[in-house]
Amino acid sequence: MADPVEDAGERLETAERPTSTSRVRVLNVDGGERHRRSDRLATEEPMEIRVDEPGGEQRKVAVTMRTPGHDFELAAGFLFTEGIIGPGDVRGIRYCDVPREEQHYNVVTVAVGRPLPDFAARSFYTTSSCGICGKASLEALDVQCAPVAPGPVVTAELLTALPDELRRVQRVFDRTGGLHAAALFDAEGTLRTSREDVGRHNAVDKVVGAELMAGALPLSDRILLVSGRASFEIVQKAAVAGVPIICAVSAPSSLAVDAARRFGITVVGFLREERFNVYSHTERIAGS
Amino acid sequence: MADPVEDAGERLETAERPTSTSRVRVLNVDGGERHRRSDRLATEEPMEIRVDEPGGEQRKVAVTMRTPGHDFELAAGFLFTEGIIGPGDVRGIRYCDVPREEQHYNVVTVAVGRPLPDFAARSFYTTSSCGICGKASLEALDVQCAPVAPGPVVTAELLTALPDELRRVQRVFDRTGGLHAAALFDAEGTLRTSREDVGRHNAVDKVVGAELMAGALPLSDRILLVSGRASFEIVQKAAVAGVPIICAVSAPSSLAVDAARRFGITVVGFLREERFNVYSHTERIAGS
Repeated sequence: MADPVEDAGERLETAERPTSTSRVRVLNVDGGERHRRSDRLATEEPMEIRVDEPGGEQRKVAVTMRTPGHDFELAAGFLFTEGIIGPGDVRGIRYCDVPREEQHYNVVTVAVGRPLPDFAARSFYTTSSCGICGKASLEALDVQCAPVAPGPVVTAELLTALPDELRRVQRVFDRTGGLHAAALFDAEGTLRTSREDVGRHNAVDKVVGAELMAGALPLSDRILLVSGRASFEIVQKAAVAGVPIICAVSAPSSLAVDAARRFGITVVGFLREERFNVYSHTERIAGS
Repeated sequence: MADPVEDAGERLETAERPTSTSRVRVLNVDGGERHRRSDRLATEEPMEIRVDEPGGEQRKVAVTMRTPGHDFELAAGFLFTEGIIGPGDVRGIRYCDVPREEQHYNVVTVAVGRPLPDFAARSFYTTSSCGICGKASLEALDVQCAPVAPGPVVTAELLTALPDELRRVQRVFDRTGGLHAAALFDAEGTLRTSREDVGRHNAVDKVVGAELMAGALPLSDRILLVSGRASFEIVQKAAVAGVPIICAVSAPSSLAVDAARRFGITVVGFLREERFNVYSHTERIAGS
């Protein structure tokens, strides 16, 4: 029988104009109870920011992963808080001129009233994504990695025990309350590596880097747990490392789930006490 | 009388080799009680990642804001998960060759065994910082902005009411559990602008951008509230916009507090129920 969690297709459905939330089918596990239901995730899509100068020159300034909505404010605010424009420089803001494409709403151009000082020496790319729409981001990832191996099948009880294991070793967090953590567990739920950092992506790079230096890649029998949300970037890094199961204590983004479905990764979110949601590839959860 | 919160000097003390936590003096406010005490923050420092290729060419790949510790794993993990190197490419990893400088530990070079494919077209800068140590990051910010205006003095009661105000309007978060929020309040505690995004820095850019487009800059009588942690990047953006008070529901980083002290900004952290900590410029908290 077709799995309704996977049935939503290769990508979450998005309207032509991206919305701030995306609907998704999830498997909800709560103790012994299991339900399939509809859920909403925060939309994550790349947005490219460009500047039009008076002479007609257009410059690409940055790509940032963002939640659609208030895009013009984001473009103006970014250029200002990064020191590229002054408060009075904005002459107009528009979406990309190519209509009827999803990218239309993912490229924002700010026209300015004066030539800007050179900022090429500073690099403002706020993400490693080179795409200007979610699909392009996924396709860029295709080049880097094959779908992950089938990997282990795990029980709900094993997953719900992981956050406590991580908290037990999160030493700096206990002292400062200010750090993200990432941990790798084996298929029996034993913690193998954990690292902390102010940046969640750094914590993931540290655990993957530790395994790389130990010659233990690909991580095809490992479970990755992150302390907060799971963004596209986290799934991207896990996909490259071949991790089959990603668990997050909080919510995944829409593009994180898109990427996980495409690369054969199981994404578990809201992993708290006896409960969690499964957003993709439920076949790795025993009894699902 | 000298204020012991400010007495720690221009920068938080760091050992020559940066540590994962930094000690800081804070003013703790808990209902009617006020105490000055020592606290620990997660250290945030930029780290530059370079690659040495066999022919002797060295390339700068990225600067990331990170918590010191496991730096070699971070460098190797980043290069691998971003698709720049394969698992078997690492020949050696070292800190910068210039000894006895703080930067020594903030530049990591990975020697690889083969020439790498061209990756210049993709930009891997993971932060807008162009510095390779915290001090350089602060100095880069000097160019962009003057110290903020004295601004308002506010009561503890006003501050502790802000998180509930923000949660009241955080609509997408309620539906998805997956978003950061940023809000601007006036000096009477009235919410003026709030925005949500998967990226905390984007949420801040959106509220600043909204004010810019309304011609309301600088924000010298506004209070910025962010839903999670306060990093250097958040303080940087607030400093450029002239915001005198930044409140975070969770912890600030060491470099966030460094930047706030330097630019005359009051940073409030762990703002929860009747309690909060003040990390810098306590003169804006009434009765302090």
